[in-house]
Amino acid sequence: MRRRVEADIKAWQARGTVPIMVGGDHSITLPALRALCAAHGPLAVVQIDAHLDLSSAELWGDSFHHGTPFRHAIEERLIADGTLFQVGIRGPRGSESDDALALAHDHQVISPDDLAARGIAAVGASIRERIGNRPTYISFDIDGVDPAFAPGTGTPVPGGLTAREALAFLRALRGVRVVGADLVEYCPMLDHSDITGHLAAHAIWEMLALVAAPRS
Amino acid sequence: MRRRVEADIKAWQARGTVPIMVGGDHSITLPALRALCAAHGPLAVVQIDAHLDLSSAELWGDSFHHGTPFRHAIEERLIADGTLFQVGIRGPRGSESDDALALAHDHQVISPDDLAARGIAAVGASIRERIGNRPTYISFDIDGVDPAFAPGTGTPVPGGLTAREALAFLRALRGVRVVGADLVEYCPMLDHSDITGHLAAHAIWEMLALVAAPRS
Amino acid sequence: MRRRVEADIKAWQARGTVPIMVGGDHSITLPALRALCAAHGPLAVVQIDAHLDLSSAELWGDSFHHGTPFRHAIEERLIADGTLFQVGIRGPRGSESDDALALAHDHQVISPDDLAARGIAAVGASIRERIGNRPTYISFDIDGVDPAFAPGTGTPVPGGLTAREALAFLRALRGVRVVGADLVEYCPMLDHSDITGHLAAHAIWEMLALVAAPRS
Amino acid sequence: MRRRVEADIKAWQARGTVPIMVGGDHSITLPALRALCAAHGPLAVVQIDAHLDLSSAELWGDSFHHGTPFRHAIEERLIADGTLFQVGIRGPRGSESDDALALAHDHQVISPDDLAARGIAAVGASIRERIGNRPTYISFDIDGVDPAFAPGTGTPVPGGLTAREALAFLRALRGVRVVGADLVEYCPMLDHSDITGHLAAHAIWEMLALVAAPRS
Amino acid sequence: MRRRVEADIKAWQARGTVPIMVGGDHSITLPALRALCAAHGPLAVVQIDAHLDLSSAELWGDSFHHGTPFRHAIEERLIADGTLFQVGIRGPRGSESDDALALAHDHQVISPDDLAARGIAAVGASIRERIGNRPTYISFDIDGVDPAFAPGTGTPVPGGLTAREALAFLRALRGVRVVGADLVEYCPMLDHSDITGHLAAHAIWEMLALVAAPRS
Amino acid sequence: MRRRVEADIKAWQARGTVPIMVGGDHSITLPALRALCAAHGPLAVVQIDAHLDLSSAELWGDSFHHGTPFRHAIEERLIADGTLFQVGIRGPRGSESDDALALAHDHQVISPDDLAARGIAAVGASIRERIGNRPTYISFDIDGVDPAFAPGTGTPVPGGLTAREALAFLRALRGVRVVGADLVEYCPMLDHSDITGHLAAHAIWEMLALVAAPRS
Repeated sequence: MRRRVEADIKAWQARGTVPIMVGGDHSITLPALRALCAAHGPLAVVQIDAHLDLSSAELWGDSFHHGTPFRHAIEERLIADGTLFQVGIRGPRGSESDDALALAHDHQVISPDDLAARGIAAVGASIRERIGNRPTYISFDIDGVDPAFAPGTGTPVPGGLTAREALAFLRALRGVRVVGADLVEYCPMLDHSDITGHLAAHAIWEMLALVAAPRS
Repeated sequence: MRRRVEADIKAWQARGTVPIMVGGDHSITLPALRALCAAHGPLAVVQIDAHLDLSSAELWGDSFHHGTPFRHAIEERLIADGTLFQVGIRGPRGSESDDALALAHDHQVISPDDLAARGIAAVGASIRERIGNRPTYISFDIDGVDPAFAPGTGTPVPGGLTAREALAFLRALRGVRVVGADLVEYCPMLDHSDITGHLAAHAIWEMLALVAAPRS
Repeated sequence: MRRRVEADIKAWQARGTVPIMVGGDHSITLPALRALCAAHGPLAVVQIDAHLDLSSAELWGDSFHHGTPFRHAIEERLIADGTLFQVGIRGPRGSESDDALALAHDHQVISPDDLAARGIAAVGASIRERIGNRPTYISFDIDGVDPAFAPGTGTPVPGGLTAREALAFLRALRGVRVVGADLVEYCPMLDHSDITGHLAAHAIWEMLALVAAPRS
Repeated sequence: MRRRVEADIKAWQARGTVPIMVGGDHSITLPALRALCAAHGPLAVVQIDAHLDLSSAELWGDSFHHGTPFRHAIEERLIADGTLFQVGIRGPRGSESDDALALAHDHQVISPDDLAARGIAAVGASIRERIGNRPTYISFDIDGVDPAFAPGTGTPVPGGLTAREALAFLRALRGVRVVGADLVEYCPMLDHSDITGHLAAHAIWEMLALVAAPRS
Repeated sequence: MRRRVEADIKAWQARGTVPIMVGGDHSITLPALRALCAAHGPLAVVQIDAHLDLSSAELWGDSFHHGTPFRHAIEERLIADGTLFQVGIRGPRGSESDDALALAHDHQVISPDDLAARGIAAVGASIRERIGNRPTYISFDIDGVDPAFAPGTGTPVPGGLTAREALAFLRALRGVRVVGADLVEYCPMLDHSDITGHLAAHAIWEMLALVAAPRS
Repeated sequence: MRRRVEADIKAWQARGTVPIMVGGDHSITLPALRALCAAHGPLAVVQIDAHLDLSSAELWGDSFHHGTPFRHAIEERLIADGTLFQVGIRGPRGSESDDALALAHDHQVISPDDLAARGIAAVGASIRERIGNRPTYISFDIDGVDPAFAPGTGTPVPGGLTAREALAFLRALRGVRVVGADLVEYCPMLDHSDITGHLAAHAIWEMLALVAAPRS
């Protein structure tokens, strides 16, 4: 799977497009980052998520799974130091050092409460400033949003972003140079009245708007 | 349908009551406005909605449908200039000029983000001041509220008002002279655990409270 | 039932544990308060709830039911004056004097709008100061949270706390001396995709954290 | 409640109509039977239900509740011996004598498996023959149908009638002299996509057809 | 829409494929029948459906809609006399003559009860014999199945086929010469846990098996 | 996990009880069979299931998972030849030889259509005769039942047993010597209104009745 995704993203990238993937579990992000890093060099990454996805645990004897993409991406130097922004992180942690890898590379972990306290506009401005002109990847795990707004996902965590915050946060990134994006962990089987699907579609629309927006 | 609603509203109005309709799709609002304008002259209208409902598009060859009531109401001069307040509007627009008709008549389009940024009390005060003693109609399309709180509706749009904001906004209108109201677009088939129904009932209760409240 | 709950709580308390009950309807709180008051004297109580639960109405000829536990607790002097905090209260009241009993004993009724206006940190600090070192019971009726976040409950009321507010409010109590707690009115039959269950589990986890937290 | 229902049914009956009630819990059947027995003498009753509703247990100190209407109806001699037909009964029983009262009066208890084994046409013919020209009441507790077809009810029991069997069974009663009917225990809060509501509506339509059908 | 569907089906047919459409509402069947009749001459049609779809009523001033495809197909002589089989038809009819058009052309209307009484194997054999070697179109409206098995559809009718009957009926058609097929009226927004989607996928799989099966 | 389940089942078995496990995925069955075979010798097994669970495929590099318990049980000679009964099997197969292992050991694969065609009583009698006095294990995968009756499961397959058939089939086993049982693959997150949970509880109740029933 990882080889195929990497090859496909490379092919789309080579045609001058900005690939946006719809998943599927979060393990599709790693090969996309590999493909885009090969073309652009180390990337900035904005990750909307309930979980850090920095786990060092193996699942079924494999360290490549939907809880580890950003660990591998950091270790493989696909992400430039100081430019991974993990937004929406919350819930009980497995240990005090869960975010050690991110912090060791000067990345930022921003909880929903942090986001609300600092203000979406201010957080967005700070992220844009730190990213500057660096090629940027946006990875939107739908479970970054609260289960009330996005029940259709496999590992829901209460206390997340509202749909309005998530969409406003995407708009607050206007001006970054987006070279790829994904919307992952949407599971229709657990949705009701398609509300998660509608939200996912709107988030992708905002990503398209970021790609289309003029950059000064 | 439109003739029957108009006649019924006229009959109720003639008896000195304040009619509150529960729908049903948004096309029931136009005949109600016709009936009440005939009795009171041009009205102020507070519309809670995800959509402008100002479309000029025909549906099945008919320009009268649930996407056009306020276009017709403006064109038929049922609403006094500067006193249509469209609250909760959001989502991708069809074109840049979707709200041109409203703006040409000095009406106000207020998104959920606008409402939160300005504050519900301030927006309510501003609306009350602009309305003054003018007879006022409240049209509450349940899709003005976010699908997390109101999944039971046919054209949901993520990023809407919370239930708490919607109810607080209604309370912030206390003092306006309400001569009619409706709660529309509630679709039980798409609801779960009746949460949309409970919200609709509470919204109607707040409307009754507005009618019952003493006005200085 | 009340005799069995009281006996069980006494037994757990005698072993030096801090009992946390998961319900079940709110009528299980009264016998827990009886048991803990017998050991500690009058308690402080933090109640998260949509409803006052101070009703004097009988249900099926019985004044002991899920709408009355705090009336009985006040009348039986299980709660120290001025230290019952009812957070999340909202919706139409039966009469103007619904909260008369609470106010007569100098207790506090805090609506979701009050909580948001004053700020969770400030409300938490105020409660902690009023409670001081008094033994404290936390009673979390899941319907204190809005039905969008907690549809799995029997008497939902729109306009409640968000999941994020509820969890933050629990964390804002850090430092109080918790001697018992409950999470009540969770009804899986009305839930969807287990979102209410996940929220209940997280709330209990926060209660455990309050018990475990060092107190200065 | 019981006094009001009895009075209303008497009033409707006096006008020459055949009253059909939509509930609501099964306790509304007893006052309807009282009203109709007063006009017609002892009735035949066709009850579609998962439960016998012959309980002698008190609930909250009251023997009149939704588990006892047919016990009282038998004891008050509202039902003619040998003409109560309880169809759809299933599930674990509380004791071996649950149906003793029904059997002592020569009534019939017919499980879903009995109905399928004997055939709906044959069971219908047998019931029509035993009833003859006696005035007949039909009480359709929606939980007689399997929860797959009727999830919107409070005490579901797996293994019930299919929707098709239930509707065919009603049609198989064509020719009985229906003097009243009810459809009870429908709970929209537990329904999904309105499938229970649609079934209830179709069952009522079949009842109307029974009333309208010519009788030889 | 009708022009585009007709052109697409013609294009697929010209390539020697057997087109299977997934809808979408039932109005897509008419242009498919037009395209295939142009290639093959009048067709046999097996329609699984709750509704006759023979209405002569206009909807929004248009006689072409999801309640009329088979009326037009008969009137346009796209279906050979005596070879339209409408299976699963049920529910209250609008008038006694709803099926007059079908019967005038010697077509067959088979209710779920008919199907069960005659047996799926016997009905299938009878249909195969009447069809013989004629090119055949299968139109599966998912509402032919009972709402318990297929809640995800817009006009559900209780009392339909079970999923098992529907799949067995498709298998009982083995040997007919299928030149096209569709699965229509699936509405994910009204589904739960994807059960309707799984059933639709299995039905399409059975259609593929009919196409692939050797014919004697 | 497998070691712990095997040890626990051995411990319960040693106390003279008949262990009934509630799962959880189907991989818990293999260690239970190991424990009980150690005590009783090769077992008869009645498996209610949509799937054969005889796969030889590895999942995440492991041949022990919820698609393989009966392959391992046969290969480890935990099941006596000719006494594995797989009831409810249906749906597309991966290859023509999926059931080769079962058939090579003279086991029986019975589809829902087989069960209905032969009759539940006849199938039950045949199974009881083939089992005789052999110690028997019942493994009820809830997906043996159709998704309409049991949506709360992870790999639903349309066309399954009805709830009534499943419960009747369990009752038809009365007289076999049950030494252990399980109810697996119930997933509350995918259920609605608890209908799958109610069915699972009734199935366990029938299993208890089989254990309690006198054997001639």
